[in-house]
Amino acid sequence: MRAVDIIMKKRGNPASPSGEELTREEIEFIVNGYVRGDIPDYQIASWLMAVYFNGMTFAETGILTDCMLNSGDRIDLSGITGPFVDKHSTGGVGDKLSLPLAPIVAACGVRVPMMSGRALGHTGGTLDKLDSITGYRSLISVPEFRKFLEKTGFAMTGQTKEIVPADRLLYALRDVTGTVESIPLITASILSKKVAEGSDALVFDVKCGSGAFMKTYDDAKKLAESLAGTAREMGKQAIALITNMNEPLGNTVGNFLEIEESMDVLEGHGPEDVTELTLALGAWMTVLGGVASGYAEGIDQCRDAVASGKALKLFLENVESQGGDVSKLLADRGKRRSPHHAEFRATETGYITGIDAFSTGLAGVHLGVGRNRTDEAVCPEAGILLRHRRGDRVEKGTVIMDLYGRDEAGLGSAAALLEKAVRYGNRAPEAEPLILGEVTEL
Amino acid sequence: MRAVDIIMKKRGNPASPSGEELTREEIEFIVNGYVRGDIPDYQIASWLMAVYFNGMTFAETGILTDCMLNSGDRIDLSGITGPFVDKHSTGGVGDKLSLPLAPIVAACGVRVPMMSGRALGHTGGTLDKLDSITGYRSLISVPEFRKFLEKTGFAMTGQTKEIVPADRLLYALRDVTGTVESIPLITASILSKKVAEGSDALVFDVKCGSGAFMKTYDDAKKLAESLAGTAREMGKQAIALITNMNEPLGNTVGNFLEIEESMDVLEGHGPEDVTELTLALGAWMTVLGGVASGYAEGIDQCRDAVASGKALKLFLENVESQGGDVSKLLADRGKRRSPHHAEFRATETGYITGIDAFSTGLAGVHLGVGRNRTDEAVCPEAGILLRHRRGDRVEKGTVIMDLYGRDEAGLGSAAALLEKAVRYGNRAPEAEPLILGEVTEL
Repeated sequence: MRAVDIIMKKRGNPASPSGEELTREEIEFIVNGYVRGDIPDYQIASWLMAVYFNGMTFAETGILTDCMLNSGDRIDLSGITGPFVDKHSTGGVGDKLSLPLAPIVAACGVRVPMMSGRALGHTGGTLDKLDSITGYRSLISVPEFRKFLEKTGFAMTGQTKEIVPADRLLYALRDVTGTVESIPLITASILSKKVAEGSDALVFDVKCGSGAFMKTYDDAKKLAESLAGTAREMGKQAIALITNMNEPLGNTVGNFLEIEESMDVLEGHGPEDVTELTLALGAWMTVLGGVASGYAEGIDQCRDAVASGKALKLFLENVESQGGDVSKLLADRGKRRSPHHAEFRATETGYITGIDAFSTGLAGVHLGVGRNRTDEAVCPEAGILLRHRRGDRVEKGTVIMDLYGRDEAGLGSAAALLEKAVRYGNRAPEAEPLILGEVTEL
Repeated sequence: MRAVDIIMKKRGNPASPSGEELTREEIEFIVNGYVRGDIPDYQIASWLMAVYFNGMTFAETGILTDCMLNSGDRIDLSGITGPFVDKHSTGGVGDKLSLPLAPIVAACGVRVPMMSGRALGHTGGTLDKLDSITGYRSLISVPEFRKFLEKTGFAMTGQTKEIVPADRLLYALRDVTGTVESIPLITASILSKKVAEGSDALVFDVKCGSGAFMKTYDDAKKLAESLAGTAREMGKQAIALITNMNEPLGNTVGNFLEIEESMDVLEGHGPEDVTELTLALGAWMTVLGGVASGYAEGIDQCRDAVASGKALKLFLENVESQGGDVSKLLADRGKRRSPHHAEFRATETGYITGIDAFSTGLAGVHLGVGRNRTDEAVCPEAGILLRHRRGDRVEKGTVIMDLYGRDEAGLGSAAALLEKAVRYGNRAPEAEPLILGEVTEL
C-alpha cells in the first residue's frame, strides 16, 4: 500500500471527480503511518485537502475516528455503574451550560464523565471557568476522575496527553494547511476524544451563528448530521441540537461570573435562555441514559433535580472533591469582581435589536476572560455582566453592561468592540428561537 | 502574508467553494518561499491539492510560470539573430518528431533552440535517441548550444540544473502527493522550462489517447488551451495541436531505429503519419517565426526544405557539430540491430484494427528502449520495427513486427505485451484523423 495511491483514490480523477470511499485498511494505513512517523507531513497534508474537497461518508468518518481513538488510551470506566452520557458543545460565547448540566443530569441518575477544554479565540472554556473557583483543580488524575464520578455522579477534567495523540498531530497540521474547516475531520476530532472518555451515548450542542464556528444553519446542520451519524456508525446513540449563537448566552461572559450564573441556574433562577437550553440538553441526556422514557419526562426530571436542590448539592460536592473552597465560593458570589471596572452605556435610545456574540466574545478576550495564545493565563475576575439584552428598550446613556478588566487598558478596547456589537432599532425585534434544529440517531 | 491564508484563499469556503484568484504577490510568496525553504513541504502540498481542485486562471498560471522561471537561469540567446521557435510534445510512443522537425524548420530560416528530455515510463526521449548516434553528445554547454544554434539554425540539448529549479522541487513533491494531474501545474512546469530556453514562440504537440498522458480528447483540449492561453499571457505566441496517440507513430519504436526513420522523413520517404505531423508542426513554426505568411505556405516551405536536401544536410551538420560520427551513422543505417531478435507474428487472420500505443511503449521498455528508473541506461540497438500497422490485412502467422531486445529475456515479455496490444477484425477499420484539434493564440 502506498500513501500516494490512497491520496489519489480520495482525490478522484476527471472521470470520477468525487473520488472513492476509502477502506478501513487504507484509513488505518494513513493514520497509523502518520502517528508512527512513516508517512511524512506533506502526504498527510495533501490527503487532508483531498478530504476537505471530496468529504467522507459517515462510515469512513467512523473508521477515521476509530483509528484516531486507537492511537492512544481510553478512560477505563469499568467497575463503575453506568449509564455514561456526555455532552459536547462546539463552543460559544457565554456558554456555561456544562457547569449546571453535569450535576443536573447526575442528579437524575446518569453518570457524566465530562472532559472539557480551555478558552481559545473568542469562545470561553469550561476548565478556565472551574479554575476561577478558589482551590479548584480542573485537571485531575484518571483514578481521581473515576472516584469522583462514582461518588458524585459526575466529574470534570481535561483531555490528557495520552488521549487521542493522533488528533493533536492532525489538528496541528490542519491548522497550518487550511484544512480545519472540514466536516468529517471536525467530526473525527470531536468524536474520537468523546468516545475515548468512555461515554455510552452523546449529546451534541452544535452552535450556529456569529459567535459559533459554524456561521450558517446549513453548515451547522451538516456538522450535526455528521456527528450524530458517525456516532451511530460507531455504535453510540447520539442527539445533536443546533442552537442559536448570534447572541451571548445568559447575562454573563467571564470565568467566575459564569460560575455564579451557573449556580443561579442550579437554584432555579438563572436566565431564561441558559435554563431552557440546559434543561433541553439534560432531558436528552436522561433519555439517552435510559432514566427517562422520553423528552418531556426528561425535562420534568431535570426540573425536579433543580427544585429539590439535589443538583446544587452535587455541584458543591464536586467543588469540594476537586479541591475548591466551598465557603469562599459562597462568600464570593456577587462580590468577586476585578477593580478595573467600566460601565458600558447605550449610545442610542430605542430597542436593542442585537448584541453580536462574536464581538462580545472578542471583547471578553480583551478584558482577560480568554486568551490569544495557549500559554496565556486568564483572569478569573474579568468579564462582562449584561444588564440589558436583545429586545430591551433603553435610553441613550442607560448602562447596558458592566465591564471588568484584567487591567485598565483592556476596558477601552473592549468597549470599542462592544460599541460595534450592539445594534439599536425603533421597534422591538422578533424573538429568535434558541433551538434551531435537532438530529436524532437512537 | 501567511501561507495558510493563501492556501485558504485558493481552497475557498462553503459560501465560495471555488476559491479566489491569487495575486502575483501571493503566488510569488508561495514559490519563492518554497525555493528558499521558508515554507514547509506540507503547506505547499495542501496548496497544490487546492490548485488541483480549484484550478487556476490563465493569468494565475502565467504568474506561476513566471515565478518558477525566475527561480533559475535563462538561456541567453542575445547576439544571435532570431526568430526563435521551439516545439514541445507531451510525450508519446514512436514520437521522433523533434529529430526531423528541427532541421526542417531551421532550413526555412527559423532558429530552433531545442531542449528535450529522456525516456521515462512508456514514452521515448529525444536525448536517448540522439545518444544512439555513435559519438553524439546530447548534453552540451550553453556556449556550445549558442554556437551550434547560430551555425546550423538549430541545436539539441537537455535541461541544465540551473534551469527552473522550482520545477524540480515542485515536481518531486507533486509526484508523492497526488497532484501531478493538474492542468495549470502541468502547464507551468512545461512552459517555465520552454520560456527559459529563450524561444519567442512555441508550438505544442498535445498527445491524446492510450499512449499519451492525456487519455481523452476533453483533457487534451484543456491542456492545449491552458498551454496556449498561458503562453499568450506571458507574451509568447503559441499554437497547440491535439494529436492522436492511440497508435504508435511511424514504423519504429526504439532509439537508433527512430534516428533511421527520422532520416527517412528528411529524405522524403518517411512514413505517412510521421511526415504529415512533422510538416504540420513545422508549418506552424514557420508561421510563428514569421517566415511563412500562413499555414499552407509553411507546409510548402517545409516540403521544399526536404526536397532540396537542405534539411538533411543541416541534420548531418548538427550530428557532426555535436560529436557524432556521420560516416558510421550512414554506414549503420538499416544494419545496426541488437542480435537478440524475434519475429512477432499475427495470431489471427483479418484486418489489424488497432495496435495499442501504451502497451507497445511498455513492450519497448521491456526490450531496453526506455527505462524504469532515471538512472537506468537504455539500449541504442533495441526496439520494435513494425512491418504491418492498423488497417493492414494479415494472415495468421504473418510477421507483423521485428523485436530487438537488450537481451533474450526481454523478447518474451515484450511479445506477451504486444499480443494484447494488437487487435484484429473482419473489416478494415475506419481511418482515424492524426490531428484532432488545434488551439491558436497568435
